[in-house]
Amino acid sequence: MQNKKLVNGRSEAVVDPDDRGLTYGDGLFETIPVRDGQLCLWNYHMDRLLDGSRRLGLPEPPLSLLREEARYLVRDIEKAVLKIIYTRGSGENRGYAPPSRPLPTRVLTLHEPPKQTVGNWFEGVEVNICKTRLSSQPALAGIKHLNRLEQVMARGEWRDQGVAEGLMLDENGLVVEGTATNVFVVQSSALVTPALDYCGVEGVMRRRIIDLAPELGLRVEHRGLYPEELGDVDELFLTNSVIGVWRVRSVAKSTIAQGHIANRFLERVAQDSLVPDQVMRTLDLPK
Amino acid sequence: MQNKKLVNGRSEAVVDPDDRGLTYGDGLFETIPVRDGQLCLWNYHMDRLLDGSRRLGLPEPPLSLLREEARYLVRDIEKAVLKIIYTRGSGENRGYAPPSRPLPTRVLTLHEPPKQTVGNWFEGVEVNICKTRLSSQPALAGIKHLNRLEQVMARGEWRDQGVAEGLMLDENGLVVEGTATNVFVVQSSALVTPALDYCGVEGVMRRRIIDLAPELGLRVEHRGLYPEELGDVDELFLTNSVIGVWRVRSVAKSTIAQGHIANRFLERVAQDSLVPDQVMRTLDLPK
Repeated sequence: MQNKKLVNGRSEAVVDPDDRGLTYGDGLFETIPVRDGQLCLWNYHMDRLLDGSRRLGLPEPPLSLLREEARYLVRDIEKAVLKIIYTRGSGENRGYAPPSRPLPTRVLTLHEPPKQTVGNWFEGVEVNICKTRLSSQPALAGIKHLNRLEQVMARGEWRDQGVAEGLMLDENGLVVEGTATNVFVVQSSALVTPALDYCGVEGVMRRRIIDLAPELGLRVEHRGLYPEELGDVDELFLTNSVIGVWRVRSVAKSTIAQGHIANRFLERVAQDSLVPDQVMRTLDLPK
Repeated sequence: MQNKKLVNGRSEAVVDPDDRGLTYGDGLFETIPVRDGQLCLWNYHMDRLLDGSRRLGLPEPPLSLLREEARYLVRDIEKAVLKIIYTRGSGENRGYAPPSRPLPTRVLTLHEPPKQTVGNWFEGVEVNICKTRLSSQPALAGIKHLNRLEQVMARGEWRDQGVAEGLMLDENGLVVEGTATNVFVVQSSALVTPALDYCGVEGVMRRRIIDLAPELGLRVEHRGLYPEELGDVDELFLTNSVIGVWRVRSVAKSTIAQGHIANRFLERVAQDSLVPDQVMRTLDLPK
Protein backbone atom coordinates (compact mmCIF):
# COMPACT_ATOMS: atom_id res chain seq x y z
CA MET A 1 0.00 0.00 0.00
CA GLN A 2 2.89 2.36 -0.75
CA ASN A 3 1.91 5.86 -1.86
CA LYS A 4 -1.68 5.34 -0.90
CA LYS A 5 -1.85 8.61 0.92
CA LEU A 6 -3.37 12.02 0.38
CA VAL A 7 -2.76 15.13 2.45
CA ASN A 8 -5.11 17.96 1.52
CA GLY A 9 -5.60 16.19 -1.78
CA ARG A 10 -1.89 15.92 -2.63
CA SER A 11 -0.19 12.61 -3.16
CA GLU A 12 3.15 13.98 -1.89
CA ALA A 13 1.37 13.38 1.41
CA VAL A 14 3.49 15.12 4.01
CA VAL A 15 2.43 17.08 7.04
CA ASP A 16 3.67 20.51 8.13
CA PRO A 17 5.61 20.16 11.40
CA ASP A 18 3.60 23.13 12.74
CA ASP A 19 0.29 21.32 12.16
CA ARG A 20 -1.73 21.43 15.37
CA GLY A 21 -2.60 17.78 14.87
CA LEU A 22 1.05 17.06 15.65
CA THR A 23 1.82 19.85 18.09
CA TYR A 24 -1.27 19.39 20.31
CA GLY A 25 -3.22 16.40 19.00
CA ASP A 26 -5.75 19.04 17.99
CA GLY A 27 -7.94 16.99 15.68
CA LEU A 28 -9.95 13.83 15.08
CA PHE A 29 -9.64 10.55 13.23
CA GLU A 30 -11.70 7.75 11.74
CA THR A 31 -10.65 4.21 10.90
CA ILE A 32 -12.79 2.88 8.08
CA PRO A 33 -12.72 -0.68 6.71
CA VAL A 34 -12.66 -1.06 2.94
CA ARG A 35 -14.30 -4.14 1.40
CA ASP A 36 -14.39 -4.67 -2.37
CA GLY A 37 -13.81 -0.98 -3.01
CA GLN A 38 -16.63 -0.01 -0.62
CA LEU A 39 -16.22 2.25 2.42
CA CYS A 40 -17.97 0.41 5.27
CA LEU A 41 -20.44 2.36 7.42
CA TRP A 42 -19.30 5.59 5.81
CA ASN A 43 -22.29 7.58 7.10
CA TYR A 44 -21.75 6.45 10.67
CA HIS A 45 -18.11 7.54 10.47
CA MET A 46 -18.99 10.91 8.97
CA ASP A 47 -21.67 11.48 11.63
CA ARG A 48 -19.07 10.95 14.32
CA LEU A 49 -16.54 13.19 12.54
CA LEU A 50 -19.18 15.94 12.31
CA ASP A 51 -20.07 15.55 15.97
CA GLY A 52 -16.40 15.59 17.03
CA SER A 53 -15.77 18.71 14.93
CA ARG A 54 -18.64 20.50 16.64
CA ARG A 55 -17.35 19.46 20.06
CA LEU A 56 -13.81 20.70 19.32
CA GLY A 57 -14.98 23.82 17.48
CA LEU A 58 -13.38 22.71 14.21
CA PRO A 59 -14.83 23.91 10.90
CA GLU A 60 -17.34 21.45 9.49
CA PRO A 61 -15.43 18.75 7.61
CA PRO A 62 -15.91 18.81 3.80
CA LEU A 63 -17.78 15.50 3.58
CA SER A 64 -18.20 15.31 -0.18
CA LEU A 65 -14.54 16.14 -0.76
CA LEU A 66 -13.50 13.54 1.82
CA ARG A 67 -15.70 10.98 0.10
CA GLU A 68 -14.23 11.81 -3.30
CA GLU A 69 -10.66 11.49 -1.99
CA ALA A 70 -11.50 8.31 -0.10
CA ARG A 71 -13.04 6.74 -3.21
CA TYR A 72 -9.99 7.69 -5.25
CA LEU A 73 -7.73 5.86 -2.79
CA VAL A 74 -9.84 2.72 -2.38
CA ARG A 75 -10.91 2.03 -5.95
CA ASP A 76 -9.83 -1.52 -6.93
CA ILE A 77 -8.90 -2.24 -3.30
CA GLU A 78 -10.25 -5.55 -2.03
CA LYS A 79 -9.53 -5.20 1.68
CA ALA A 80 -7.86 -2.39 3.57
CA VAL A 81 -8.24 0.10 6.35
CA LEU A 82 -8.65 3.75 5.42
CA LYS A 83 -7.63 6.20 8.08
CA ILE A 84 -8.87 9.78 7.95
CA ILE A 85 -7.27 12.42 10.16
CA TYR A 86 -8.85 15.88 10.36
CA THR A 87 -6.90 18.55 12.25
CA ARG A 88 -7.19 22.26 13.01
CA GLY A 89 -4.28 22.80 10.60
CA SER A 90 -1.26 25.00 11.13
CA GLY A 91 -1.67 27.81 13.59
CA GLU A 92 -1.49 31.55 12.95
CA ASN A 93 0.90 31.59 15.90
CA ARG A 94 2.61 29.07 18.10
CA GLY A 95 0.47 28.64 21.22
CA TYR A 96 -2.66 26.86 22.38
CA ALA A 97 -5.14 29.54 21.25
CA PRO A 98 -7.12 28.09 18.35
CA PRO A 99 -6.71 30.28 15.23
CA SER A 100 -9.73 32.45 14.54
CA ARG A 101 -9.83 31.20 10.92
CA PRO A 102 -8.42 27.68 10.96
CA LEU A 103 -7.52 25.97 7.68
CA PRO A 104 -8.02 22.31 8.61
CA THR A 105 -5.76 19.56 7.35
CA ARG A 106 -7.18 16.31 6.01
CA VAL A 107 -4.97 13.25 5.89
CA LEU A 108 -6.12 10.02 4.24
CA THR A 109 -3.91 6.94 4.48
CA LEU A 110 -4.58 3.40 3.36
CA HIS A 111 -3.30 0.45 5.38
CA GLU A 112 -3.16 -3.34 5.06
CA PRO A 113 -5.88 -5.10 7.08
CA PRO A 114 -4.49 -6.06 10.49
CA LYS A 115 -3.27 -9.64 10.73
CA GLN A 116 -5.61 -11.37 13.17
CA THR A 117 -5.91 -15.08 13.78
CA VAL A 118 -9.31 -16.53 12.79
CA GLY A 119 -9.43 -18.12 16.24
CA ASN A 120 -10.34 -14.68 17.60
CA TRP A 121 -13.74 -15.09 15.89
CA PHE A 122 -14.10 -18.88 16.16
CA GLU A 123 -13.05 -19.42 19.76
CA GLY A 124 -13.32 -15.95 21.24
CA VAL A 125 -10.49 -13.94 22.76
CA GLU A 126 -8.52 -13.71 25.97
CA VAL A 127 -8.36 -10.22 27.42
CA ASN A 128 -6.61 -8.70 30.39
CA ILE A 129 -7.29 -5.66 32.53
CA CYS A 130 -4.99 -2.69 32.02
CA LYS A 131 -3.33 -0.85 34.88
CA THR A 132 -3.54 2.45 32.98
CA ARG A 133 -6.84 4.07 33.84
CA LEU A 134 -8.98 6.33 31.68
CA SER A 135 -9.13 9.84 33.09
CA SER A 136 -12.44 11.63 33.39
CA GLN A 137 -12.92 14.48 30.91
CA PRO A 138 -16.52 15.19 29.90
CA ALA A 139 -15.37 17.83 27.38
CA LEU A 140 -13.63 15.15 25.30
CA ALA A 141 -15.50 11.95 26.21
CA GLY A 142 -16.99 9.96 23.35
CA ILE A 143 -15.19 11.64 20.45
CA LYS A 144 -12.32 10.08 18.52
CA HIS A 145 -9.74 12.81 19.02
CA LEU A 146 -5.99 12.58 18.50
CA ASN A 147 -5.01 12.61 22.21
CA ARG A 148 -4.46 8.89 22.59
CA LEU A 149 -1.58 8.52 25.02
CA GLU A 150 -3.75 6.66 27.54
CA GLN A 151 -4.51 4.01 24.93
CA VAL A 152 -0.86 3.85 23.88
CA MET A 153 0.26 3.39 27.50
CA ALA A 154 -2.41 0.76 28.12
CA ARG A 155 -1.65 -1.16 24.92
CA GLY A 156 2.04 -1.08 25.83
CA GLU A 157 1.36 -3.03 29.02
CA TRP A 158 1.46 -6.44 27.30
CA ARG A 159 3.25 -8.12 24.39
CA ASP A 160 1.78 -11.64 24.80
CA GLN A 161 0.14 -12.28 21.42
CA GLY A 162 -2.30 -14.66 23.12
CA VAL A 163 -3.94 -11.64 24.74
CA ALA A 164 -6.07 -9.92 22.12
CA GLU A 165 -7.18 -6.84 24.03
CA GLY A 166 -7.00 -5.05 27.37
CA LEU A 167 -9.97 -3.63 29.22
CA MET A 168 -9.59 -0.13 30.60
CA LEU A 169 -11.19 1.06 33.83
CA ASP A 170 -12.21 4.55 34.83
CA GLU A 171 -11.11 6.26 38.04
CA ASN A 172 -13.84 4.42 39.96
CA GLY A 173 -12.68 1.03 38.74
CA LEU A 174 -15.55 0.51 36.31
CA VAL A 175 -14.88 -1.07 32.91
CA VAL A 176 -15.32 1.53 30.16
CA GLU A 177 -13.89 -0.03 27.00
CA GLY A 178 -10.97 -1.93 25.51
CA THR A 179 -7.90 -0.04 24.27
CA ALA A 180 -9.33 -0.15 20.72
CA THR A 181 -12.76 -1.71 21.21
CA ASN A 182 -16.08 -1.11 22.95
CA VAL A 183 -17.48 -3.56 25.48
CA PHE A 184 -20.91 -5.22 25.59
CA VAL A 185 -22.42 -7.61 28.10
CA VAL A 186 -25.53 -9.75 27.64
CA GLN A 187 -27.51 -10.36 30.80
CA SER A 188 -31.00 -11.90 30.48
CA SER A 189 -32.67 -9.75 27.83
CA ALA A 190 -30.47 -6.73 28.42
CA LEU A 191 -27.51 -5.58 26.36
CA VAL A 192 -25.32 -3.58 28.73
CA THR A 193 -22.62 -1.19 27.57
CA PRO A 194 -20.83 1.48 29.57
CA ALA A 195 -22.02 5.07 29.21
CA LEU A 196 -19.29 7.27 27.73
CA ASP A 197 -20.10 10.60 29.36
CA TYR A 198 -16.78 10.97 31.19
CA CYS A 199 -14.32 8.96 29.14
CA GLY A 200 -14.10 6.45 26.30
CA VAL A 201 -14.65 6.54 22.56
CA GLU A 202 -18.08 6.08 21.03
CA GLY A 203 -17.19 3.47 18.43
CA VAL A 204 -19.02 3.40 15.14
CA MET A 205 -19.54 -0.35 15.54
CA ARG A 206 -20.85 0.26 19.06
CA ARG A 207 -23.52 2.53 17.62
CA ARG A 208 -24.35 -0.02 14.94
CA ILE A 209 -24.75 -2.77 17.58
CA ILE A 210 -27.01 -0.53 19.69
CA ASP A 211 -29.11 0.20 16.58
CA LEU A 212 -29.42 -3.55 15.89
CA ALA A 213 -30.26 -4.58 19.48
CA PRO A 214 -34.08 -4.33 19.15
CA GLU A 215 -34.00 -6.79 16.18
CA LEU A 216 -32.48 -9.32 18.55
CA GLY A 217 -35.05 -8.64 21.25
CA LEU A 218 -32.56 -6.88 23.50
CA ARG A 219 -33.05 -3.65 25.42
CA VAL A 220 -29.95 -1.50 25.81
CA GLU A 221 -28.71 -0.37 29.22
CA HIS A 222 -25.90 2.14 29.64
CA ARG A 223 -23.93 1.56 32.80
CA GLY A 224 -20.43 0.79 33.98
CA LEU A 225 -19.43 -2.74 34.93
CA TYR A 226 -17.13 -3.77 37.74
CA PRO A 227 -14.63 -6.40 36.63
CA GLU A 228 -16.02 -8.73 39.34
CA GLU A 229 -19.44 -8.63 37.66
CA LEU A 230 -18.09 -10.11 34.44
CA GLY A 231 -17.97 -13.61 35.89
CA ASP A 232 -21.77 -13.60 36.20
CA VAL A 233 -22.82 -12.35 32.78
CA ASP A 234 -24.39 -14.48 30.03
CA GLU A 235 -21.95 -13.16 27.42
CA LEU A 236 -19.26 -10.55 26.98
CA PHE A 237 -18.10 -9.26 23.62
CA LEU A 238 -15.96 -6.54 22.07
CA THR A 239 -16.62 -4.51 18.96
CA ASN A 240 -14.89 -2.15 16.59
CA SER A 241 -15.15 -1.14 12.96
CA VAL A 242 -12.42 -3.44 11.75
CA ILE A 243 -12.97 -6.67 13.73
CA GLY A 244 -16.75 -6.45 13.90
CA VAL A 245 -17.42 -8.57 17.00
CA TRP A 246 -15.18 -10.75 19.17
CA ARG A 247 -16.64 -12.89 21.93
CA VAL A 248 -14.56 -12.80 25.10
CA ARG A 249 -13.48 -16.21 26.40
CA SER A 250 -11.65 -15.04 29.50
CA VAL A 251 -10.81 -11.88 31.40
CA ALA A 252 -7.54 -11.96 33.34
CA LYS A 253 -7.59 -15.79 33.02
CA SER A 254 -11.12 -16.06 34.50
CA THR A 255 -13.53 -17.88 32.21
CA ILE A 256 -16.50 -15.96 30.80
CA ALA A 257 -19.81 -17.65 29.95
CA GLN A 258 -20.48 -18.21 26.23
CA GLY A 259 -23.78 -17.62 24.46
CA HIS A 260 -24.90 -17.07 20.90
CA ILE A 261 -25.93 -13.40 20.89
CA ALA A 262 -22.43 -12.18 19.96
CA ASN A 263 -22.55 -14.33 16.83
CA ARG A 264 -26.00 -13.04 15.90
CA PHE A 265 -24.52 -9.53 15.95
CA LEU A 266 -21.42 -10.69 14.08
CA GLU A 267 -23.59 -12.08 11.30
CA ARG A 268 -25.30 -8.73 10.92
CA VAL A 269 -22.13 -6.62 10.84
CA ALA A 270 -19.57 -8.95 9.22
CA GLN A 271 -20.06 -7.46 5.76
CA ASP A 272 -19.40 -3.98 7.16
CA SER A 273 -16.09 -4.95 8.76
CA LEU A 274 -12.94 -6.91 7.91
CA VAL A 275 -14.03 -10.31 9.22
CA PRO A 276 -11.86 -12.85 7.33
CA ASP A 277 -13.45 -14.90 4.53
CA GLN A 278 -12.77 -18.12 6.41
CA VAL A 279 -14.97 -16.83 9.23
CA MET A 280 -17.56 -15.34 6.87
CA ARG A 281 -18.16 -18.76 5.28
CA THR A 282 -19.25 -20.22 8.64
CA LEU A 283 -21.77 -17.45 9.38
CA ASP A 284 -25.44 -17.32 8.56
CA LEU A 285 -25.13 -14.02 6.70
CA PRO A 286 -28.20 -11.89 5.90
CA LYS A 287 -29.16 -12.14 2.23
CA MET B 1 11.76 32.70 10.28
CA GLN B 2 10.90 30.87 7.08
CA ASN B 3 12.73 27.59 6.51
CA LYS B 4 14.01 27.54 10.04
CA LYS B 5 13.01 23.95 10.55
CA LEU B 6 14.68 20.58 10.79
CA VAL B 7 12.97 17.19 10.83
CA ASN B 8 15.39 14.38 11.61
CA GLY B 9 18.16 16.72 10.52
CA ARG B 10 16.64 17.54 7.14
CA SER B 11 15.72 21.04 6.13
CA GLU B 12 12.89 19.79 3.87
CA ALA B 13 11.23 19.53 7.27
CA VAL B 14 8.07 17.54 6.68
CA VAL B 15 6.45 14.91 8.83
CA ASP B 16 5.19 11.49 7.76
CA PRO B 17 1.39 11.37 8.11
CA ASP B 18 1.81 7.99 9.87
CA ASP B 19 4.01 9.53 12.57
CA ARG B 20 2.64 8.57 15.97
CA GLY B 21 3.18 12.13 17.12
CA LEU B 22 0.34 13.07 14.77
CA THR B 23 -1.80 9.94 14.96
CA TYR B 24 -1.82 9.63 18.77
CA GLY B 25 0.08 12.59 20.21
CA ASP B 26 2.65 9.95 21.14
CA GLY B 27 5.57 12.19 22.02
CA LEU B 28 6.90 15.16 23.93
CA PHE B 29 7.85 18.77 23.31
CA GLU B 30 9.97 21.59 24.70
CA THR B 31 9.66 25.31 24.10
CA ILE B 32 13.05 26.96 24.50
CA PRO B 33 13.75 30.69 24.39
CA VAL B 34 16.70 31.82 22.30
CA ARG B 35 18.57 34.95 23.38
CA ASP B 36 21.60 36.22 21.45
CA GLY B 37 22.13 32.80 19.89
CA GLN B 38 21.99 31.10 23.29
CA LEU B 39 19.53 28.34 24.21
CA CYS B 40 18.10 29.38 27.58
CA LEU B 41 18.02 26.80 30.40
CA TRP B 42 18.97 24.08 27.92
CA ASN B 43 19.90 21.58 30.63
CA TYR B 44 16.57 22.02 32.43
CA HIS B 45 14.74 21.39 29.17
CA MET B 46 16.80 18.31 28.36
CA ASP B 47 16.28 16.94 31.88
CA ARG B 48 12.55 17.19 31.42
CA LEU B 49 12.73 15.64 27.94
CA LEU B 50 14.73 12.73 29.37
CA ASP B 51 12.29 12.27 32.21
CA GLY B 52 9.30 12.40 29.87
CA SER B 53 10.93 9.85 27.55
CA ARG B 54 11.41 7.46 30.45
CA ARG B 55 7.81 7.92 31.54
CA LEU B 56 6.45 7.23 28.03
CA GLY B 57 8.93 4.45 27.32
CA LEU B 58 10.52 6.36 24.42
CA PRO B 59 14.15 5.70 23.49
CA GLU B 60 16.50 8.11 25.21
CA PRO B 61 16.62 11.31 23.18
CA PRO B 62 19.97 11.97 21.41
CA LEU B 63 20.89 15.04 23.45
CA SER B 64 24.13 15.95 21.73
CA LEU B 65 22.56 15.63 18.29
CA LEU B 66 19.60 17.75 19.42
CA ARG B 67 22.01 20.35 20.74
CA GLU B 68 23.95 20.39 17.49
CA GLU B 69 20.78 20.80 15.42
CA ALA B 70 19.43 23.44 17.80
CA ARG B 71 22.67 25.42 17.60
CA TYR B 72 22.63 25.24 13.81
CA LEU B 73 19.13 26.77 13.74
CA VAL B 74 19.72 29.50 16.31
CA ARG B 75 23.15 30.78 15.30
CA ASP B 76 22.92 34.54 14.61
CA ILE B 77 19.39 34.63 16.03
CA GLU B 78 18.82 37.44 18.49
CA LYS B 79 15.46 36.44 19.92
CA ALA B 80 13.25 33.51 19.07
CA VAL B 81 11.49 30.47 20.44
CA LEU B 82 12.87 27.07 19.51
CA LYS B 83 10.36 24.26 19.69
CA ILE B 84 11.58 20.67 19.89
CA ILE B 85 9.14 17.81 19.32
CA TYR B 86 10.26 14.25 19.99
CA THR B 87 7.88 11.47 18.95
CA ARG B 88 7.82 7.68 18.87
CA GLY B 89 8.11 7.92 15.07
CA SER B 90 6.13 5.99 12.49
CA GLY B 91 4.67 2.72 13.65
CA GLU B 92 5.48 -0.77 12.40
CA ASN B 93 1.72 -1.15 12.12
CA ARG B 94 -1.30 1.03 12.49
CA GLY B 95 -2.61 0.59 16.02
CA TYR B 96 -1.90 1.77 19.54
CA ALA B 97 0.74 -0.85 20.38
CA PRO B 98 4.09 0.94 20.63
CA PRO B 99 6.57 -0.53 18.12
CA SER B 100 9.13 -2.82 19.72
CA ARG B 101 11.95 -0.89 18.02
CA PRO B 102 10.76 2.67 17.61
CA LEU B 103 12.66 5.09 15.40
CA PRO B 104 11.84 8.42 17.06
CA THR B 105 11.25 11.58 15.09
CA ARG B 106 12.81 14.87 16.13
CA VAL B 107 11.32 18.11 14.91
CA LEU B 108 12.98 21.46 15.55
CA THR B 109 11.17 24.64 14.53
CA LEU B 110 12.10 28.25 15.15
CA HIS B 111 9.42 30.86 15.84
CA GLU B 112 9.18 34.62 16.32
CA PRO B 113 8.99 35.64 19.98
CA PRO B 114 5.33 36.04 20.97
CA LYS B 115 4.05 39.62 20.86
CA GLN B 116 3.28 40.55 24.45
CA THR B 117 2.58 44.00 25.77
CA VAL B 118 5.23 45.25 28.23
CA GLY B 119 2.36 46.10 30.59
CA ASN B 120 2.16 42.37 31.40
CA TRP B 121 5.47 42.79 33.23
CA PHE B 122 5.09 46.38 34.42
CA GLU B 123 1.51 46.31 35.72
CA GLY B 124 0.84 42.60 36.08
CA VAL B 125 -1.83 40.63 34.25
CA GLU B 126 -5.54 39.97 34.41
CA VAL B 127 -6.44 36.30 34.40
CA ASN B 128 -9.70 34.41 34.34
CA ILE B 129 -10.70 30.94 35.48
CA CYS B 130 -11.32 28.40 32.74
CA LYS B 131 -14.40 26.20 32.62
CA THR B 132 -12.42 23.34 31.08
CA ARG B 133 -11.02 21.25 33.92
CA LEU B 134 -7.79 19.25 33.96
CA SER B 135 -8.47 15.53 34.17
CA SER B 136 -6.60 13.38 36.63
CA GLN B 137 -4.04 11.04 35.05
CA PRO B 138 -1.03 10.20 37.23
CA ALA B 139 0.61 8.25 34.38
CA LEU B 140 0.97 11.46 32.35
CA ALA B 141 1.01 14.20 35.00
CA GLY B 142 3.98 16.55 35.01
CA ILE B 143 5.43 15.69 31.60
CA LYS B 144 5.14 17.89 28.53
CA HIS B 145 3.50 15.41 26.18
CA LEU B 146 1.70 16.13 22.91
CA ASN B 147 -1.86 15.45 24.20
CA ARG B 148 -2.86 19.06 24.71
CA LEU B 149 -6.55 19.23 23.83
CA GLU B 150 -7.50 20.30 27.36
CA GLN B 151 -5.22 23.33 27.05
CA VAL B 152 -6.53 24.07 23.55
CA MET B 153 -10.14 23.92 24.77
CA ALA B 154 -9.34 26.07 27.80
CA ARG B 155 -7.41 28.66 25.76
CA GLY B 156 -10.30 28.77 23.29
CA GLU B 157 -12.65 29.98 26.02
CA TRP B 158 -11.68 33.65 25.67
CA ARG B 159 -10.56 36.05 22.94
CA ASP B 160 -10.41 39.24 25.05
CA GLN B 161 -6.80 40.39 24.61
CA GLY B 162 -6.97 42.10 27.99
CA VAL B 163 -7.01 38.67 29.62
CA ALA B 164 -3.48 37.30 29.51
CA GLU B 165 -4.04 33.80 30.88
CA GLY B 166 -6.67 31.41 32.24
CA LEU B 167 -6.27 29.35 35.39
CA MET B 168 -7.23 25.70 35.14
CA LEU B 169 -8.77 23.73 37.99
CA ASP B 170 -8.62 20.02 38.67
CA GLU B 171 -11.67 17.82 39.24
CA ASN B 172 -11.81 18.95 42.87
CA GLY B 173 -11.86 22.62 41.94
CA LEU B 174 -8.27 23.32 42.98
CA VAL B 175 -6.09 25.62 40.87
CA VAL B 176 -3.35 23.58 39.15
CA GLU B 177 -1.80 25.89 36.56
CA GLY B 178 -2.52 28.32 33.76
CA THR B 179 -3.12 27.05 30.22
CA ALA B 180 0.55 27.72 29.41
CA THR B 181 2.02 28.79 32.75
CA ASN B 182 2.62 27.51 36.27
CA VAL B 183 1.16 29.25 39.29
CA PHE B 184 2.90 30.48 42.45
CA VAL B 185 1.52 32.13 45.55
CA VAL B 186 3.50 33.99 48.22
CA GLN B 187 2.05 33.76 51.70
CA SER B 188 4.19 34.95 54.65
CA SER B 189 7.52 33.21 54.10
CA ALA B 190 6.06 30.38 52.02
CA LEU B 191 6.11 30.00 48.27
CA VAL B 192 3.13 27.80 47.44
CA THR B 193 2.72 26.00 44.12
CA PRO B 194 0.34 23.17 43.28
CA ALA B 195 1.69 19.62 43.30
CA LEU B 196 1.52 18.07 39.83
CA ASP B 197 1.04 14.41 40.73
CA TYR B 198 -2.35 14.02 39.02
CA CYS B 199 -2.34 16.66 36.29
CA GLY B 200 -0.45 19.69 35.03
CA VAL B 201 2.88 20.30 33.36
CA GLU B 202 6.07 20.71 35.36
CA GLY B 203 7.37 23.85 33.72
CA VAL B 204 11.10 24.38 33.36
CA MET B 205 10.68 27.92 34.76
CA ARG B 206 8.69 26.45 37.66
CA ARG B 207 11.64 24.26 38.53
CA ARG B 208 14.01 27.21 38.21
CA ILE B 209 11.84 29.31 40.56
CA ILE B 210 11.69 26.47 43.11
CA ASP B 211 15.50 26.16 42.92
CA LEU B 212 15.84 29.91 43.54
CA ALA B 213 13.36 30.12 46.43
CA PRO B 214 15.88 29.54 49.27
CA GLU B 215 17.96 32.52 48.02
CA LEU B 216 14.91 34.68 48.63
CA GLY B 217 14.32 33.19 52.08
CA LEU B 218 11.23 31.29 50.99
CA ARG B 219 10.32 27.71 51.82
CA VAL B 220 8.41 25.88 49.09
CA GLU B 221 5.05 24.21 49.78
CA HIS B 222 3.32 21.99 47.26
CA ARG B 223 -0.44 22.13 47.56
CA GLY B 224 -3.52 23.00 45.57
CA LEU B 225 -5.22 26.35 45.99
CA TYR B 226 -8.93 27.02 45.92
CA PRO B 227 -9.80 30.08 43.82
CA GLU B 228 -11.40 31.65 46.93
CA GLU B 229 -8.03 31.55 48.73
CA LEU B 230 -6.38 33.76 46.12
CA GLY B 231 -7.99 36.89 47.55
CA ASP B 232 -5.99 36.43 50.78
CA VAL B 233 -2.50 35.79 49.45
CA ASP B 234 0.41 38.25 49.60
CA GLU B 235 1.23 37.75 45.92
CA LEU B 236 0.26 35.58 42.98
CA PHE B 237 2.42 35.11 39.91
CA LEU B 238 2.69 33.00 36.76
CA THR B 239 5.79 31.57 35.16
CA ASN B 240 6.92 29.92 31.96
CA SER B 241 10.11 29.64 29.93
CA VAL B 242 9.23 32.41 27.52
CA ILE B 243 7.63 35.09 29.71
CA GLY B 244 9.74 34.46 32.80
CA VAL B 245 7.42 35.83 35.52
CA TRP B 246 4.14 37.75 35.37
CA ARG B 247 2.55 39.15 38.51
CA VAL B 248 -1.22 38.64 38.60
CA ARG B 249 -3.24 41.80 39.14
CA SER B 250 -6.69 40.24 39.17
CA VAL B 251 -8.37 36.85 38.93
CA ALA B 252 -11.84 36.89 37.38
CA LYS B 253 -11.96 40.68 38.04
CA SER B 254 -11.11 40.27 41.76
CA THR B 255 -8.06 42.26 42.77
CA ILE B 256 -4.99 40.38 43.98
CA ALA B 257 -2.54 41.84 46.50
CA GLN B 258 0.79 43.06 45.09
CA GLY B 259 4.21 42.50 46.62
CA HIS B 260 7.80 42.56 45.40
CA ILE B 261 8.77 38.87 45.51
CA ALA B 262 7.61 38.24 41.94
CA ASN B 263 9.96 40.94 40.71
CA ARG B 264 12.87 39.50 42.71
CA PHE B 265 12.32 36.22 40.83
CA LEU B 266 11.89 38.06 37.52
CA GLU B 267 15.25 39.76 37.99
CA ARG B 268 16.91 36.38 38.48
CA VAL B 269 15.32 34.66 35.47
CA ALA B 270 14.89 37.52 32.98
CA GLN B 271 18.11 36.72 31.13
CA ASP B 272 16.95 33.12 30.67
CA SER B 273 13.65 34.10 29.11
CA LEU B 274 12.27 36.52 26.49
CA VAL B 275 11.51 39.44 28.79
CA PRO B 276 11.47 42.51 26.50
CA ASP B 277 14.45 44.90 26.61
CA GLN B 278 12.21 47.74 27.76
CA VAL B 279 11.38 45.68 30.85
CA MET B 280 14.93 44.43 31.32
CA ARG B 281 16.21 48.01 31.58
CA THR B 282 14.01 48.64 34.63
CA LEU B 283 15.17 45.55 36.52
CA ASP B 284 17.99 45.23 38.99
CA LEU B 285 19.65 42.40 37.03
CA PRO B 286 22.30 40.19 38.62
CA LYS B 287 25.79 41.08 37.39
